[in-house]
Amino acid sequence: MTITTLSSATREVNIGFDRPFVVIGERINPTGRKILAEEMKAGDFSRVTADALAQVAAGAHMLDVNAGIPLADEPAILAKAIQLVQAVTDAPISIDSSIIEALEAGLAVYQGKALVNSVTGEDEVLERVLPLVAKYGAAVVAISNDETGISEDPDERFKVAKKIVERAADYGIHYSNVIVDPLVMPIGAINTAGLQVMHVVRRLREELKVNTTCGASNVSFGLPNRNGINSSFLNMAIAAGMTSAITSPLHAEVMQAVRGADVMMGHDPHCANWIKAYREPQAADGEGGGRESRRRRRRS
Amino acid sequence: MTITTLSSATREVNIGFDRPFVVIGERINPTGRKILAEEMKAGDFSRVTADALAQVAAGAHMLDVNAGIPLADEPAILAKAIQLVQAVTDAPISIDSSIIEALEAGLAVYQGKALVNSVTGEDEVLERVLPLVAKYGAAVVAISNDETGISEDPDERFKVAKKIVERAADYGIHYSNVIVDPLVMPIGAINTAGLQVMHVVRRLREELKVNTTCGASNVSFGLPNRNGINSSFLNMAIAAGMTSAITSPLHAEVMQAVRGADVMMGHDPHCANWIKAYREPQAADGEGGGRESRRRRRRS
Repeated sequence: MTITTLSSATREVNIGFDRPFVVIGERINPTGRKILAEEMKAGDFSRVTADALAQVAAGAHMLDVNAGIPLADEPAILAKAIQLVQAVTDAPISIDSSIIEALEAGLAVYQGKALVNSVTGEDEVLERVLPLVAKYGAAVVAISNDETGISEDPDERFKVAKKIVERAADYGIHYSNVIVDPLVMPIGAINTAGLQVMHVVRRLREELKVNTTCGASNVSFGLPNRNGINSSFLNMAIAAGMTSAITSPLHAEVMQAVRGADVMMGHDPHCANWIKAYREPQAADGEGGGRESRRRRRRS
Repeated sequence: MTITTLSSATREVNIGFDRPFVVIGERINPTGRKILAEEMKAGDFSRVTADALAQVAAGAHMLDVNAGIPLADEPAILAKAIQLVQAVTDAPISIDSSIIEALEAGLAVYQGKALVNSVTGEDEVLERVLPLVAKYGAAVVAISNDETGISEDPDERFKVAKKIVERAADYGIHYSNVIVDPLVMPIGAINTAGLQVMHVVRRLREELKVNTTCGASNVSFGLPNRNGINSSFLNMAIAAGMTSAITSPLHAEVMQAVRGADVMMGHDPHCANWIKAYREPQAADGEGGGRESRRRRRRS
């Protein structure tokens, strides 16, 4: 069983096939959040720490921190954001940037074992990111696209993932420290996107033995009732072997899907987490004995 | 690809591996519904026809009709209920009784090809039900328990299903006309119930090549927020190959899980059914571009 261990100064999170699904909160990201971007650029991180606390309270096990703001000093802002998030929560962090200097600045101040988000299959990116991951003893998200872009063929994306895992090994990074993102396509555009994910996740698990993650809400891009599609996606991807997702724990439907999937996978002994999460608001729900229960009642 | 075709006088429903999931509405069942039981016994079927129409409006593809009322003339009541339901809807019917004379009375008045619900692996039941199924050219739900009860071992339940499929063949009933119910256990009591279902459904599909059904709400028996667990269950069971369920389409979460699963399985081309079901109330939902979408926006 492959386990990827991430940590803060005081807490470990384990991602693995026989473990509860890990939710990496995606909210601390100024992309598309104009006010947050302006505040971070001006040195005001109050919303960052508030978002950190809110996501952990909602059930996030880890937090993604991104500081991608145009025309700003991303390395300095990212490092500051990470320090402040680590000051208010013990959730391990996914350090998220496409700028190598920002990743390094984040790693330099990070306390614990971080997740570097991300490396692609592009040679130039591999050669710059993997040494950093090795140097800091971190784990890394491997995104399965390369110089040719994102293939629509999931088996091509698998090949890119395999290349990244092999290249990581060359740098002394064990496959348990590579978490592959198989890239989830919008199902409104590509009707087979769901089947693709299940197929690739199974291959990644059985052949490369790696943990997996994804941007769980991308699948529903452009569709109405996105949380409904996201819920089906998460349940099915988890059944196929997906072990984590970068998503928003602030959507109740997302956390319900994750908790329900944990129950179904046998990863919530005695349904203790489920009962803790839903007992009070639903305590009076005695409705719907179900077909077999009714049968038994009738026959007894 | 195994297809089970059921019909009313004017409409066909096909259950199959590459078809949208089939919801068999469970509401027309007096068990645990005291008022309905009294009305049916007194010859008042207004609630029966209202329930039929409501379930079809909510998305049921077929309707289960049960008339199991203590100390009542079940064969006559079941036959009457079936005739009235057939008068108001064109949904094919699952004729539901544990009394052989009631099944026969229902089949005698039924227009089309019915689903007989059910036969177990008990020899006495097999010998009485299968000739009826053959005589009327119907299909049958095979429940995987036998004289020894319901085994907690899913592979034992598989063996019972195999026995029923083989015995059906002796009566000239093709395996495509046998829909196996692998019996879903309450996951609050049996922590592996979810994994069991996925395992058995895959075996039923790959080895016996049969369609499957279940009482989808039994899994959540005794737990809070039952619809949440039922939603995870349906999504995962459908991903494993489950092709129908006897459940209530009146729970919005159930229909959302089924429609979402159809999208994910590639059984809702262009997401047309999903968009039709959810477009209007959610048209303004532009929130949450998802992780990859954000990445693309940022990088472009």
